[in-house]
Amino acid sequence: MAKKVLKFGGTSVGTIERILHVAKIIKKEHDSGTQVIAIVSAMSGKTNELLKQSKSISANFNKRELDVLLSSGEQVTSALLAGALIEFGVNSKSWLNWQIPILTEGEHSNSRIININIKEINKFLSEKGVVIIPGFQGISKTGDVTTIGRGGSDATAVAVAKIFDTDTCEIYTDVDGVFSTDPKKIPVAKKIDKISYEEMLELSSLGAKVMQSSAVQTAMMYNIPLEVKSTFTDREGTKIFDQENLDYTKSVTGVAYSKDDAKITLMGVQDKPGVAANIFEPLSKNQINVDMVIQNISSDQKITDITFTIKRDDLIKTIEILKNNKDIKYESMSNNNKVSKISIVGAGMVSTPGITYKMFRSLAEEKINILAISTSEIKLSVIIHEDDTLKAIKKLHTAFDLD
Amino acid sequence: MAKKVLKFGGTSVGTIERILHVAKIIKKEHDSGTQVIAIVSAMSGKTNELLKQSKSISANFNKRELDVLLSSGEQVTSALLAGALIEFGVNSKSWLNWQIPILTEGEHSNSRIININIKEINKFLSEKGVVIIPGFQGISKTGDVTTIGRGGSDATAVAVAKIFDTDTCEIYTDVDGVFSTDPKKIPVAKKIDKISYEEMLELSSLGAKVMQSSAVQTAMMYNIPLEVKSTFTDREGTKIFDQENLDYTKSVTGVAYSKDDAKITLMGVQDKPGVAANIFEPLSKNQINVDMVIQNISSDQKITDITFTIKRDDLIKTIEILKNNKDIKYESMSNNNKVSKISIVGAGMVSTPGITYKMFRSLAEEKINILAISTSEIKLSVIIHEDDTLKAIKKLHTAFDLD
Repeated sequence: MAKKVLKFGGTSVGTIERILHVAKIIKKEHDSGTQVIAIVSAMSGKTNELLKQSKSISANFNKRELDVLLSSGEQVTSALLAGALIEFGVNSKSWLNWQIPILTEGEHSNSRIININIKEINKFLSEKGVVIIPGFQGISKTGDVTTIGRGGSDATAVAVAKIFDTDTCEIYTDVDGVFSTDPKKIPVAKKIDKISYEEMLELSSLGAKVMQSSAVQTAMMYNIPLEVKSTFTDREGTKIFDQENLDYTKSVTGVAYSKDDAKITLMGVQDKPGVAANIFEPLSKNQINVDMVIQNISSDQKITDITFTIKRDDLIKTIEILKNNKDIKYESMSNNNKVSKISIVGAGMVSTPGITYKMFRSLAEEKINILAISTSEIKLSVIIHEDDTLKAIKKLHTAFDLD
Repeated sequence: MAKKVLKFGGTSVGTIERILHVAKIIKKEHDSGTQVIAIVSAMSGKTNELLKQSKSISANFNKRELDVLLSSGEQVTSALLAGALIEFGVNSKSWLNWQIPILTEGEHSNSRIININIKEINKFLSEKGVVIIPGFQGISKTGDVTTIGRGGSDATAVAVAKIFDTDTCEIYTDVDGVFSTDPKKIPVAKKIDKISYEEMLELSSLGAKVMQSSAVQTAMMYNIPLEVKSTFTDREGTKIFDQENLDYTKSVTGVAYSKDDAKITLMGVQDKPGVAANIFEPLSKNQINVDMVIQNISSDQKITDITFTIKRDDLIKTIEILKNNKDIKYESMSNNNKVSKISIVGAGMVSTPGITYKMFRSLAEEKINILAISTSEIKLSVIIHEDDTLKAIKKLHTAFDLD
């Protein structure tokens, strides 16, 4: 008997009508004999509404209580969906974080799932019950409510798929699947039928908002077949597989972009061992994630410039640390938060020569200045001025035959 | 060291500003050295919003899931209030139904609290922590979320006051206290400074919406001093005491009314033993609560009329049962849902002669027709036409020197 995890995002359960529609999708799977565990997000807008309320009380709202607050959103969806299924004659039950329980570790608002008790749920599944689980949350060893970061319902879905050893994990969302680039910006963007975990990981961590990247990472680690598909159409979605099972005809699979980066340049930094460590250690200690780092080749003067990018939200904090830390020595600092990161991603890139050159030339043809470059085996990212974002995506999408 | 339960109703926590205000009230108590356990309702309107969502899925929404749904409301308030207190520098923590736990028994949406674990909470109180508990909910022995009926936060407050043996239980609300009648309808209504449990019980079960009646009953049973007071003013509220400690100068304490009754008359019922039982047994089995019953004295014909009142919401169901049950024999049936119940309440009534006569004469002077009468030691209720409600309250309020 097939066993599936179906995960429904915020827009998929954004209204009562949509919850009823989702109940019909689940009923169809259930009626065909599949054992279904559904993971649900909060109704769209709900988490932001709750966050806003907490922020109007304190800019630094207590993290334990924030988790109690935010977890209520998925609880509401779970109860409504279970109630809708029962109304349709399907035996169904919501299982809250503490009822299962879903055990997590790590700090509040950023926990990781470490265990899920399967006994009661497996019993219910074997009695033809449909299980509804609120995503994004769990409890800690001390019995506190925890959440696992924004978009964390994907992580719950993948963890549940792994622990219950389901055949597949289907991510229902408001788009038809994973696209070669953002279809809202570039109408010629094409839906990708099959993609590797690695590519999906790069696309989602580089700005494609279809799936949370740490969830893709977990799926890759445990080889859990994913499928991203639309709640609102019957069209085939995007299947996310092990790379070996994919046949690559194109070197580049997609173009991603994100506008949440900022660039900092430290000029006149001494070019000697340990200097870079002095700069990045205090940032790391303050949970600031440094993405790209570029260091120019030093001339005889033994001083150099270091450029790096960070999340835009961390800019003010980063500047403060750099200014106040006596171990960090430099002549001057500049920063730019009007930048965007454009990335091309493709598992076939590594075996296709000239990709880098083609990307740089394409951008040059559009007179787009490259501020920083970062590469991996399956992606190539550049930082450019924010104003050039759309022009760059369009150009690259065409240049790599994705239209 | 004083230990208090402070309970805040839905309007008291209806906005973020009000939650901040409530946090200030609690901080003041806490700073003065009192150990505080605060019980909170859902933000005003929230429970109705969730109920409406469930009803748009099913008129008969699954009760287990309804409890999961509704309990989220108080969870949100608890987290926001705990966060606000922490922002004000007070050590505070929300404790959800399952974290304490609050054990209940009985059916979903209408459970009773049977036990509350005190160990962890007492430890936290002794460490100068303010405890926030969501009202209205608990868990069952099987680990399901349960709720304890509308207005159930009062019941939680009284149960917590009892089990933690607190000095007092203060019910913060949007009015200054308990009034001699509804101050929104009758401007001359006066705040009652002191009232007995029995009178409060009658007033609240007869339509005064200040406190849930089963909570008053529990307080009476365990002699827990209550105080109903305003969240928005510093005025003294109404103290609810043991009757023996009260000094009665007035025979009648208040006039209450409710508009949620309906009247049914069965004409031509056989006047023989067992007939009344045949009528009321199936109603009771269907959870329909019969309030007043009047049976006319039978003449020689051995047939009689029976009139009784029920909750207006139960009218259609009641008529159906009476029509379809073959054991219930009568010639014709009439019903009226345009009625209201007016009650005068006072612990001094029993020792004051002429109260009944005075009430009937006052209503007669206003040409108000009495459709049914019911009496107890401390209250006298009549059913009248709904249109006469205001006229009747005004007249009785004046007649019994309450203006």
